Amino acid sequence: MSRAPEPIRLVALPGIPAVLPGDDLPALIRAAAQRASISLQAGALVVCQKIVSKAEGRVVTLSDVTPSAEAMKFASEDGRDPRQLELVLRETARIVRRGHGVTISETKHGFVCANAGVDLSNAPAPGTAVLLPLDPDASARALRDALLADCGAPPLAVIISDTFGRPWREGLVDLALGSAGIEPIRDLRGKPDLDGRELQATAIATADQLAAAAGLLMRKDAGTPAVWIEGIAIEGDGDIRGTLRDPATDLFR
Amino acid sequence: MSRAPEPIRLVALPGIPAVLPGDDLPALIRAAAQRASISLQAGALVVCQKIVSKAEGRVVTLSDVTPSAEAMKFASEDGRDPRQLELVLRETARIVRRGHGVTISETKHGFVCANAGVDLSNAPAPGTAVLLPLDPDASARALRDALLADCGAPPLAVIISDTFGRPWREGLVDLALGSAGIEPIRDLRGKPDLDGRELQATAIATADQLAAAAGLLMRKDAGTPAVWIEGIAIEGDGDIRGTLRDPATDLFR
Repeated sequence: MSRAPEPIRLVALPGIPAVLPGDDLPALIRAAAQRASISLQAGALVVCQKIVSKAEGRVVTLSDVTPSAEAMKFASEDGRDPRQLELVLRETARIVRRGHGVTISETKHGFVCANAGVDLSNAPAPGTAVLLPLDPDASARALRDALLADCGAPPLAVIISDTFGRPWREGLVDLALGSAGIEPIRDLRGKPDLDGRELQATAIATADQLAAAAGLLMRKDAGTPAVWIEGIAIEGDGDIRGTLRDPATDLFR
Repeated sequence: MSRAPEPIRLVALPGIPAVLPGDDLPALIRAAAQRASISLQAGALVVCQKIVSKAEGRVVTLSDVTPSAEAMKFASEDGRDPRQLELVLRETARIVRRGHGVTISETKHGFVCANAGVDLSNAPAPGTAVLLPLDPDASARALRDALLADCGAPPLAVIISDTFGRPWREGLVDLALGSAGIEPIRDLRGKPDLDGRELQATAIATADQLAAAAGLLMRKDAGTPAVWIEGIAIEGDGDIRGTLRDPATDLFR
């Protein structure tokens, strides 16, 4: 019988204010960690996409958006703001499905999600929309580099998370949009199970499990957009984009 | 600025042996919790489907299985054991997709998953397969009732979890197959965001987030099939089956 792994602790970083374009996100995270007496080392920092996007200026004023004919058509079908649909189409590489008032897009990054991640709630002001970061892996990398430069020490994982709907199941879960300082998928294939037989199809999406765990503390209505997780094994280094399923082997695209 | 929520702690329950059909799962859980000095109250117990299935005798000896013609055909196409495919077909209400050596089934419970949850790895003996519990919500309810009867106190949530593949993303995450003592989806729709605007489409799949969090400690290769989570809000009571998406509104079925 092998030893049980160490307990895991999740702490919401307190007191992060509403983030505005151009804000120094590493400084806000660092200050919040200090308030909670947390040293950013030997753990994973999970940060909600929304504040990353806002800090990076991925905010659009809807009155500046001129909807295309296609956006007008979709908006009319869905009972939505045509300017929102215009942003959805601009962020979309390919429409995967449309129906029930929602557009399931493959974004230019390769994520498959509702409305290409364009969000009107929790936007910095009424009449604005927040888009996904241009390159969430690069956002995670930059945040990790900044934190390591002045207050952290490796191993330090940084994950940018966002809530996603799923086929077949109601409700949203948080998934990883970007990662740095950790291998997003822990591949156990080829390792034996307890009885020595080979474990099949056991590549665990660790970054997604961390994002979902952090989601337990990441209440959009409570202003806790960053969660620190300690007690986990942090191994390897890889980005999320490299772990998206190849459309050629995807049965649902 | 609102107060940050309390930290969350996850503990793998130590020393649970390989479970066999007929084993007293509540007694095994209770003993493991005592070893870790954990009182099973004000928290969520997440238990891996595999040990629930084994305790309930959902184990099939492959040599007892006679494959149908369809199972023979699928097994030949996929390079798999025809007896496994026969079990997959018996557990399947509807085949959602087939390809790349895998059958995506809607099980008789309504779960959409690879191979209808029929698993040859981590089976109790070579030449056996483990099936999903007949009614995972009832399994969770029975385990909760037994724990409350002799050592726990409400609020106590029990979740049965299993690893699932997903469309679009590589790697597996743990999801909830059954639940008792908690509302599986926390519905924030209609509540205001930080700026007073209504949060849209924000129904968080809490049970799935708990399952994924527990998955960080649930190593199939390390014998830790049950995880205790404390520090979370436990509200309501509902089953997972009631939260599965209605096929009529599902864009991927």
